[in-house]
Amino acid sequence: MTSCELCSNVGGQLVHEAQKFRVIRVLDANFPAFYRLIWAEHVAEFTDLNEADRWLCMQAVARIEEVLRRELLPSKINLATLGNVVPHLHWHVIARFDWDSHFPQPVWGAVQRVIEPAAVMRLSASLAQLDHSVVTALSAGLLNYTCQPT
Amino acid sequence: MTSCELCSNVGGQLVHEAQKFRVIRVLDANFPAFYRLIWAEHVAEFTDLNEADRWLCMQAVARIEEVLRRELLPSKINLATLGNVVPHLHWHVIARFDWDSHFPQPVWGAVQRVIEPAAVMRLSASLAQLDHSVVTALSAGLLNYTCQPT
Repeated sequence: MTSCELCSNVGGQLVHEAQKFRVIRVLDANFPAFYRLIWAEHVAEFTDLNEADRWLCMQAVARIEEVLRRELLPSKINLATLGNVVPHLHWHVIARFDWDSHFPQPVWGAVQRVIEPAAVMRLSASLAQLDHSVVTALSAGLLNYTCQPT
Repeated sequence: MTSCELCSNVGGQLVHEAQKFRVIRVLDANFPAFYRLIWAEHVAEFTDLNEADRWLCMQAVARIEEVLRRELLPSKINLATLGNVVPHLHWHVIARFDWDSHFPQPVWGAVQRVIEPAAVMRLSASLAQLDHSVVTALSAGLLNYTCQPT
């Protein structure tokens, strides 16, 4: 029997819980504006979802991205689903800044510089405000979608 | 005036060209089954696309993922759009194997081992076969979509 870390743990600071996914904020001092959408059901790959769920998932990811862009004006948004270590579908949504510790490297790459004062002090919104905006964005009519060829 | 590398160059081995995006295969000896969907229009972020284009984009990404899963049975698929260095929307679709040079680290992380013989020799399909399957998957009715709440 295998145990999955994301089946047995929340996996971070819980921000929003929907029927099919939850959103947590990752507690990482280098990247304070780092959210993770964790699919509720234990599936490994994006294409393990049916098309409607893929769309729901990406709509939610996009809404988090929109909040980060609007509130923080980041240099870039990074989106990724890797799961090599924890193969339970989760999407990273990360606001990146040209001054952050790793930019322009991925957050998984090599450190580029030491940040002082701490990254969180440089954000143009508090984490509480960000969390609130993420909840608002995800609570507003994020229902099921159908997408059809035109 | 700025010049964009992905506006002025194909960016890899061209595999498929659609109206709104192209798909290239990245020429990386460590990760031979590494495709990249490059949006045709110069936009930086996923949410610069309208909803129908977001869906088209992710449908195409999902089809590439499906080909890689079916033909290669990888340990994991990695999907990412970063663009910190080249802020022109592109999606990485990478088949990862527990034997590859960086697994379980991201391809942007630290090398874990030296691979001999070369990674391409270990794939269960040739790159020509993979490219062909990607073209077939992307050519089958991947048109424009409209998306509506149900």
